[in-house]
This record gives sequence, structure tokens and C-alpha cells, in this order.
Amino acid sequence: MPATPRSRVPMRPASLHASSWAAAALLCSLAAGAQEALPEEAAARIVGGALTDPAGFQRLRELCDGIGPRLSGSAGAAAAVAWAAERFKQDGIPVKLEKVMVPHWVRGTLEKGEVVARPGAAPLALSLTALGGSGPTPETGLTAEVLEVRSLAEAKALGERARGKIVFYNHDMTLAKEYGELGELRGRGPIEAQKLGAAAVLVRSLSTASLRSPHTGMTRVDPALGPFPSAALAAEDAELLHRLLERGPVSVRLWLSAHQLPDVESANVVAELRGRERPEEIVLIGGHLDSWDLAQGAVDDGAGVAIVLETMRLLAKEHPRRTVRAVLFMNEENGLRGGEGYALEHAAEVAKHVAALEADSGSGRPLSVQVHGGAGAAELLRPWVRPLAILGAESTADSPEAGGADTSPLARAAEPVTMVSVRQDASRYFDLHHSAADTLDKVKPFELAQATAAFAWTTFALAEMPAVLPRPQPKPAAK
Amino acid sequence: MPATPRSRVPMRPASLHASSWAAAALLCSLAAGAQEALPEEAAARIVGGALTDPAGFQRLRELCDGIGPRLSGSAGAAAAVAWAAERFKQDGIPVKLEKVMVPHWVRGTLEKGEVVARPGAAPLALSLTALGGSGPTPETGLTAEVLEVRSLAEAKALGERARGKIVFYNHDMTLAKEYGELGELRGRGPIEAQKLGAAAVLVRSLSTASLRSPHTGMTRVDPALGPFPSAALAAEDAELLHRLLERGPVSVRLWLSAHQLPDVESANVVAELRGRERPEEIVLIGGHLDSWDLAQGAVDDGAGVAIVLETMRLLAKEHPRRTVRAVLFMNEENGLRGGEGYALEHAAEVAKHVAALEADSGSGRPLSVQVHGGAGAAELLRPWVRPLAILGAESTADSPEAGGADTSPLARAAEPVTMVSVRQDASRYFDLHHSAADTLDKVKPFELAQATAAFAWTTFALAEMPAVLPRPQPKPAAK
Repeated sequence: MPATPRSRVPMRPASLHASSWAAAALLCSLAAGAQEALPEEAAARIVGGALTDPAGFQRLRELCDGIGPRLSGSAGAAAAVAWAAERFKQDGIPVKLEKVMVPHWVRGTLEKGEVVARPGAAPLALSLTALGGSGPTPETGLTAEVLEVRSLAEAKALGERARGKIVFYNHDMTLAKEYGELGELRGRGPIEAQKLGAAAVLVRSLSTASLRSPHTGMTRVDPALGPFPSAALAAEDAELLHRLLERGPVSVRLWLSAHQLPDVESANVVAELRGRERPEEIVLIGGHLDSWDLAQGAVDDGAGVAIVLETMRLLAKEHPRRTVRAVLFMNEENGLRGGEGYALEHAAEVAKHVAALEADSGSGRPLSVQVHGGAGAAELLRPWVRPLAILGAESTADSPEAGGADTSPLARAAEPVTMVSVRQDASRYFDLHHSAADTLDKVKPFELAQATAAFAWTTFALAEMPAVLPRPQPKPAAK
Repeated sequence: MPATPRSRVPMRPASLHASSWAAAALLCSLAAGAQEALPEEAAARIVGGALTDPAGFQRLRELCDGIGPRLSGSAGAAAAVAWAAERFKQDGIPVKLEKVMVPHWVRGTLEKGEVVARPGAAPLALSLTALGGSGPTPETGLTAEVLEVRSLAEAKALGERARGKIVFYNHDMTLAKEYGELGELRGRGPIEAQKLGAAAVLVRSLSTASLRSPHTGMTRVDPALGPFPSAALAAEDAELLHRLLERGPVSVRLWLSAHQLPDVESANVVAELRGRERPEEIVLIGGHLDSWDLAQGAVDDGAGVAIVLETMRLLAKEHPRRTVRAVLFMNEENGLRGGEGYALEHAAEVAKHVAALEADSGSGRPLSVQVHGGAGAAELLRPWVRPLAILGAESTADSPEAGGADTSPLARAAEPVTMVSVRQDASRYFDLHHSAADTLDKVKPFELAQATAAFAWTTFALAEMPAVLPRPQPKPAAK
């Protein structure tokens, strides 16, 4: 309801129980950044528009139900590129396709596994799914003994014992925050086992809920070592193997038809609203068009696509000071070719990017705004995100966690781009992430609208506020 | 901890805020049923034993991990019969196998479906599973337009329009208590559509949680009409079809290889503890050995099997007054041949069954005891279930809901057998029921122990208390 007084959040001084240091920083930031008053009417239109117009969810529905899964290289991915460009055009926003070559991995039709029959016991079916990048087993299957490990270090310590075996990475993921830590089991576990001469890898799914649900994801392979079968087990099946291994040796038989095809041409979809006063300064907002193949990718990252489209549609009416550029990246999931391609293609103008936002944390409601910039960046932004108070998301904090996968090449540039994140409620995100359950019904339209309001307003604020947030320090070059 | 004073629950009068009618009934029941004091030491041994001995969960683990799925007619079912008989023998309890012929339905290897490609949209994969009793589609699949209905009445009203179509029974199951009501969509929906000349049926899964999880179950077919393809859709896929149908006609392609094989010989496993004083009077406790084929059947009904085995093991040391007979039924899930076979085989002694309990509601903690008997039955039992106070399950109530599927033929007999149920917490039961997620990890050992304590003690009480609960009135014959 944009016209009510409550949604026109007035400029107020920060609460007086803030530390004197923070208060001083705020005064400086007000002096530097808020030379012009916050445009309250624009705030009412943007936040109110996002909260009341069903267009965002409707477009997510089009993407999910009309196109569905859109793994890089698939017909769905190509359809999504065409669809997204068409939607920008419908909204009167100039758009172009920027070509990227992407991997083309396919799951094929065969994907199963079983615990081989033991004395007096029949085979037990396993619920599993090939990891992105996995190679195939022989058509008749691959049978080997299972060795359980809990870390890359334990796998490496297997040494010669791993030869010809199935290395099984088990863990106990109970919190989404552990994803980063455990992700290496999926990302690097297979290649480490392959180096030891293992026959295949099974990884316990990275998930916070399971109804026998395997969660896929990318694993990096070394082409020099050849294809290597790698699959994610449902949490229940990881528990089963663990229990059986307590009693004695266990063998598993795997059938996977996953394989890599030659790279395919695809594209990032890039749309732009040219700045009113400083068109050479760019605020980037991104999300990714590709998804895994097991589901509609409603949460990962259909929601981000909807947020980006809606942000641009709302901001097109506002003509902000700076240029706002939307990038719907291709191939975030299994290669990052879109993110890397964008950074390469636009290397000459990276320094002109004054901030980058990435919507790739699902459709949950917004909680706060995080900034990874130079000293004082969060304080400088703070007065400009006051219109998010109605959503309870008006706090800002400096955080190295701001940013995302597709914009990470910009964060690593010689003149690093300031990363701004709308932190969202992701408490159920890993219930669904990369699994067959990532479907439209999981997105609550009003939560998506709230997230859209936060992204759209924050993007506008970064494009409109007089000051530019200070850039972060360049990262030391990796050795 | 059986030796502590707290678990030796003393006989206390009922709480004084009970209605005067109930109080009067209680006095009568004490006079009639409690001529001898409740055997407190036996209560401590039985309840304490169930709560402290891990044998019940260990045996469930053997059944789930060692044998796994055990649908009637399968090798798993045969292995479960042999295993259960062996466990009774290990415990020194006389056991025999009572032959029953059971249906032999197999799912086969092919089971998939998709929304047929629409203009500009690729096919969308559906998550589904054949219903027990389903016939196959042609090997090349079956394609037809989908008609959505919400009830059997709506399906019947389709009349001639259903011919050649896929009838889709949708609903909105949110509470387990609706299972009975909605079960008819699965149980009778297919045959009603088949009578109209439909090509196939899809039923929204009866489930209270879904991560793209289809839940199977029995559907009745009319052999005269021939095989008929019938499958359960995951809740998400039912939502998808519903959304697509809002926009226009939808066709689905189905591939199912399910089919019926000739009946197979199997058995109920019957074990007995002969009564100390009144061996001719029988208290029956049952559960079922068979499960669906999609999972280990830990909750349905591995838990019940463990409860029955453990009840007998604990009661074998107590020599109760009456005979306690355990029946591990075969074919509860898709035919009830075990339950019907038992009633037929033992028709001459049905009148000697003084009570029957059935453990087939999962592994949740016990909440209360329900009785379907003659007037005053619950009151008569009440003082005898006081030892369940430590579990919070000591209340008793007369309820027509007492009883279960396998014992239902005994409840319908000319001299109906009194049904006693330990009501359990089943709030998450339909999250798992008949799905691939019914696995051992879902059973919390201490909840199973609590349920076991309640079943074991209630069974003992019925076998030991001086009085016999009054039988229910015979049901009027169905027309």
C-alpha cells in the first residue's frame, strides 16, 4: 500500500543507544551520502509496487511451468534465454544477449544403485542421483566395496586402499551454514578419490531435510583423468550405508549414464536502464537463468530471475541517476561460464561498476542488507535503506559474505567491485536446493514480493544516492 | 528404570474431578475387575523392560536393513516370515506358520510420466509411482488428456466425457485425520474411472509432507474389467497439473510396467504363550510383516512387528492368566489375506478371543488406550492401565475407532471380539506412509520403546485382569 503514511518511512536519526563510534560514522555518512533527501515518493512506488503487483510471481510461474528445468546446454536453458529477453522487451528495457560457451552435461536415463545382496539378505535399492560432471558406469553397472570417510583428509589418508573402491563421503549436515564447509566434499571429493584410483564416489547429499531426496550439484573433474562416476545419496541411504558398514564390509552396485557432451553456445541476458545523470557509473543486479535438471528450479534460481526482472520493471519508471544493468547469467550451476564471461567481456568497464547485487538465495523474506566495500560502506548506505523498515530489513552491516557466485569474478578484480547483498531467510533453502523438490509450490508469493521490494529498492538506492560506496581493498593474489 | 519407586505406579483412586457417572462406573469396575490388586512388580518389569532393553529397535534394524522391503509375494516377504519365526524361537516362544495365499503384484522397472510438450514448452517430468493393483501401460507409453476431479461423485458425473481420458483425482490433504475420507479416492477412484472407459487414473498422493514424494497404496480393481493403469502423483506434481489445467487442456504420457502375477503361498506367523489359569481365553496382539516395496517399511509396519516381538519376549517371563497369541499377519497392505485367513482358520475359536490389539500406527509415543467393547469396557480396563501413567498414556476411552485392518474380520464376527488400541502420536505418520521415505532413521528408538511399553503392558493387563471386558454388540449385517 504505497500511499499510506506508514510506508513512507521518514528520515529519522539513528537510535541513540548506538555506540558513539557508530554515531560518528553515521553523521559522516549523512554528510557525505545524504546531501539530497531520500526520495520518499520513489520509495513508496518501488516498495509498494513490488508488494502489490503479482507480476513477479506470475513470471516465475511462466518460467517454472512453461519452461521447467534449464540446465546449461539443454533446450530448457535456450528457451529461458529467449523468454527472459522477451520479457525485458515487453517492459521496454533495452536488452542484448552476450554469447558464452557452456558445458553440456547430461544425466541420461540410467541412474540407480543398490547394496549388493549379503548372506540371507536381498539387494537394497539406494536413492541417489548423479552429480553434475559425473561420468558413466559401464552399462552393466559397476560393483565395488564401499569405504566411508568424513573428510577430504580422511579420503587422502586411504592412499592405496582406495584403489578400485567406492569412496563414500558421509557427514552430518544439520545447518545450512555448514554448506560452505561441506560443499568441498561434493566439489572436490570425487577428484581426490579419482586420484587414488577409486572406482566411484558416493557423497551424502547436502540437505537439511530429506524424504529420501538426493540433492545433486557440481563436482569438478580433471579431464586428464577421464570420466569418473560420482553420485549423491539421499541422507537416508547414507545412514543405511553407515549402519551396514558398522556390521561389516558392504558392496554397492551403481548404474549411471551421465556424461559430458561438447560445449554449447548459450548467452547471458543483459538489460540496461541508462543513468539519468551519471550513465557511465553502473549498478549491476544479477541472478542466474540456468537450473539443475531435477526440477523447475523455482527457488534456485527462478526466484532470483523474477526478482531481477521485477526490479528492472519497477526501476524503468524511476530513471535513477546511474545506469542499472541486469545480468541474467547462464551456467552458474555447473561451470560459472556466464559469470566469468561477463567479467572478461566487460573487463574494461569493471572499474565503472559502483556496486553489484546478486539474487541467488531463494525466495525467502529479506532480513538485512550486507555490504562488502571499503571502510564505512554499510554506514553510508544505511540511511538509504530506511524504506526497508516496513519489511524489517533496514539494518546494514559490513560483511565479507556479501556477494555471490556469478559476481565473484568482479569481486576478485584488480579494482574490486563493491558487493551488496540482500540477506534473505534461507532457513529452509537447503531442504530443496538442487533436488527434485525445488518446485513452484515452495515459493510463497508474498515472501517473494518482500524480497523483490528489498532488492528493487536497494538497487535504486545504489543508483540514486549522491555518493558512491567506497570500494573494498583488492584481495592479495593467490599463490 | 524398573526398580525406582517412580516407575512402580501405585494404585490410586481416579481424579476427583471426574463426573459422578464416571466415578460410579469406576467403582463398579474396581469391584468387578480389580478383585485382585494390580501386580505392581510385573508392571515395573514389563514397562521398565520395554523402556530399557534395546532389543526392540535392534530387531527392527535387522528387519529393515537385513531384509528391507517385503511386499506380499516377494522374496523379502518370505524372508521376513522365516526371520520372525526364528526370533520367536530364539525367545523360547512356540510358533507356527499358518499358510495364506497372497496376491503377487509387481511394480516392474518402468514407472514414469510427463506433461506432454505444449507450444513453446518442453515436456515436464512428473514424479509418480504406480498404485498397488495397477496394470501396465503399453511399453511405448499411453498419452491422454487429463480431467481433474475432486471426488468420486465428480468422477462419476464425467460420464461419457471420461472415455479415453486420464482422470486425475486431486484433493488437499493437510491433516492425517482426513486419510479415511480421502482414501476412497485411491481405493475406489481407479475402478470408478475404469467403469467410465477412462484410459488411466492419477491420484494425488495421500501425504502430509512432500519433497516430490509419491505415496503408493492399494487400489481395488475389478478383474472382469482387466488391468488398468493407476498411479499416485507427488503433491507437487498434482499442484503442477492443477496450475496447468487452469490455463488450458493438458495431456500426460504415462509409462507403467506394473502387473499382477499368480497368487503365491505365504504365511501368518503365529506365536503363543499359553495361559496360566485360563488358557482357553485368548488375547491377540497383531502387526503385519508385509510392507510396500518402495522402502524398508520401518514405520509401516516394521515398528508394529518389533512391538509384537518385544511384547511376547517380555510377557514370556510373566506367565499371565490367559493365553497371549501374537499374529504377524501377511498381506495387510494389498489384500488383507492374512487377516481374513486368520479369521477363517480360527472361526471356531473367535468367541474365545477376549480382546485383540493391533500395532499398525507407526512408532510414535503412546497417548491413551481406546476400547471398542461393550458398555463400561473402558472403565473396567482403566485401573489396569495405571502403569502407563509414567508415559502419559493411562487414560482410557470407549471408541469405535479402536481396532485395525488385520483384526477387522474379528470385529465383524457374529460374536465380535473386543478391540483395544494403544493410540499413538501419528502426527508425522502420513509424511512417510507408503513412500520411499519410510526408512529406519525415521524411528526414534525411545519413542518405539515407549510404544512397546504401552502395548506390552496393555496386553498383559488384558491377559491378567480377573474380569473379561464386555464384548461389543454385533454389527448389523451389511445389505
